[in-house]
Amino acid sequence: MTVLPSSVRIREVGPRDGFQNEPEVIETHDKVRLIDQLGRTGLKRIEVTSFVRPDVIPQLADAAAVLEAIDLPDDVSVSVLVPNERGLDNALHHRDRIDEVNVFLSASETHNRKNVNRSIAESIDGVARVLARAREAGLRCEGVISTAFGCPYEGFVDPDRVAGIACALRDAGAQEIGFGDTTGMANPRQVGELFPRWREALGGEVELTAHFHNTRGQGLANVVAALGAGVDSFESSFGELGGCPVPPGATGNVATEDLVSMLEEMGIATGVDLPALIVASGMAADVLGRPLGSHTLVAGPVDWRR
Amino acid sequence: MTVLPSSVRIREVGPRDGFQNEPEVIETHDKVRLIDQLGRTGLKRIEVTSFVRPDVIPQLADAAAVLEAIDLPDDVSVSVLVPNERGLDNALHHRDRIDEVNVFLSASETHNRKNVNRSIAESIDGVARVLARAREAGLRCEGVISTAFGCPYEGFVDPDRVAGIACALRDAGAQEIGFGDTTGMANPRQVGELFPRWREALGGEVELTAHFHNTRGQGLANVVAALGAGVDSFESSFGELGGCPVPPGATGNVATEDLVSMLEEMGIATGVDLPALIVASGMAADVLGRPLGSHTLVAGPVDWRR
Repeated sequence: MTVLPSSVRIREVGPRDGFQNEPEVIETHDKVRLIDQLGRTGLKRIEVTSFVRPDVIPQLADAAAVLEAIDLPDDVSVSVLVPNERGLDNALHHRDRIDEVNVFLSASETHNRKNVNRSIAESIDGVARVLARAREAGLRCEGVISTAFGCPYEGFVDPDRVAGIACALRDAGAQEIGFGDTTGMANPRQVGELFPRWREALGGEVELTAHFHNTRGQGLANVVAALGAGVDSFESSFGELGGCPVPPGATGNVATEDLVSMLEEMGIATGVDLPALIVASGMAADVLGRPLGSHTLVAGPVDWRR
Repeated sequence: MTVLPSSVRIREVGPRDGFQNEPEVIETHDKVRLIDQLGRTGLKRIEVTSFVRPDVIPQLADAAAVLEAIDLPDDVSVSVLVPNERGLDNALHHRDRIDEVNVFLSASETHNRKNVNRSIAESIDGVARVLARAREAGLRCEGVISTAFGCPYEGFVDPDRVAGIACALRDAGAQEIGFGDTTGMANPRQVGELFPRWREALGGEVELTAHFHNTRGQGLANVVAALGAGVDSFESSFGELGGCPVPPGATGNVATEDLVSMLEEMGIATGVDLPALIVASGMAADVLGRPLGSHTLVAGPVDWRR
């Protein structure tokens, strides 16, 4: 078998990607409780919110309040998603509460247009200005490329175009590039082929991060393929929250507890306390008042009776 | 990346493993409708029922009626699970309706005792008598080893003991050995290591089949690892039916439609018409009156707009 990494880094994106996609707005104090519990699991990277327009995404209108109220260990890197310079301005009002800024655009023109009403070229310009100012402010930066493996509107997405966007983000200051399988179209063969290609295009200094959705149940299968291709940085969402809520019932991001369970069983260190993480997801299920897509939340960790 | 097989064989086990684990007994005519729809999907192997004691598993008390009523294409290999010689006697009353017989035992003493109230040695003796008679009757035979990757009661299961049981089944006449991850404890690293070992023990004449459960969301991840280890035969269950119903809410076998979607996306031929299979799972959801665990049933096939 391919040589696998001995440890990985995981960024928990549920408080942003998950809470944003819930039909009901979650109370600020519940968000804070959940994020604080996530901070007790050993997770070292948490995307806690996004500074977006409250009229567009009311679910995250309390970004500032959440950021000021959470109480996370010092060694947890707190990131926020910012769509544009105005978002960055708002984030910078809380500069001492933030370690990282994440920006995003789509690799497909149609998806980018529908998502942020800009062409890809316009998005790259805008995101570059955000990255420059964020780096100036001493923030670490990730650039996330949505629909990197396929687009629900356009279908095939040219991997070379994805590589070009990744290089543009790197040149603009992104230290990490996230490759997002936004609507769960990626398959393990493709994942195993594309990451080495993208790494070659980007060179050695940039961190490559895989962001998979479990739309067709292949989330962890894609993680295995990514591990085999040398990827050791992942984004996931506790409780399998998040993801495009279309079609109804479609599941979200890879569940962080399913990811942690698999990796730890494989002998790949995550640094995460799985029972504590399951507590966080159980709290989320209580707050949302519905069963979540996570499997390990139901089944519990593997019991080897050791 | 490892060389992957260009095609695989899939045995649909939902009508046995799935229907058996439903709390309510499904009406015979509904079972027949569902199995007939499965027969229209291109699936070439279907385990349609089991000849077990009706007082122990009332869900499959209509085994004979199902077998006589279903109308499957000639090239579909129909199998039934038989626990013992009495089960085989009952199955042989319908010899012309059956192509294969599947027998089973556990690799863990505790699980085998709880499941069939015998020691492993006693099970091997009993199963060997069934295999001998089934082969004499011209039936193809699979021996399934439950808890091959771990046991919920004993934890670790020695892979060499599993290999020994597999060789005993082969020696008794099994042409195919199924390795069952009965409670979803397997992980991709383990799967990638064990199948080559088991193949070496068994020699080239025997077909090795992987039977994974999605208990912790790792079902397809384990399939990817098995493919990488040269496995090209799988068992799965439409709608993600089946599997140990403990703990409550735990999911079942790998969903056949999720398996087919992933494999076809990877360019690995299954021979299965995915939309027709999704119809079958949708019918099952209607019959059972609840949402099923399958992801592709909700999300549909990947749309590449080609």
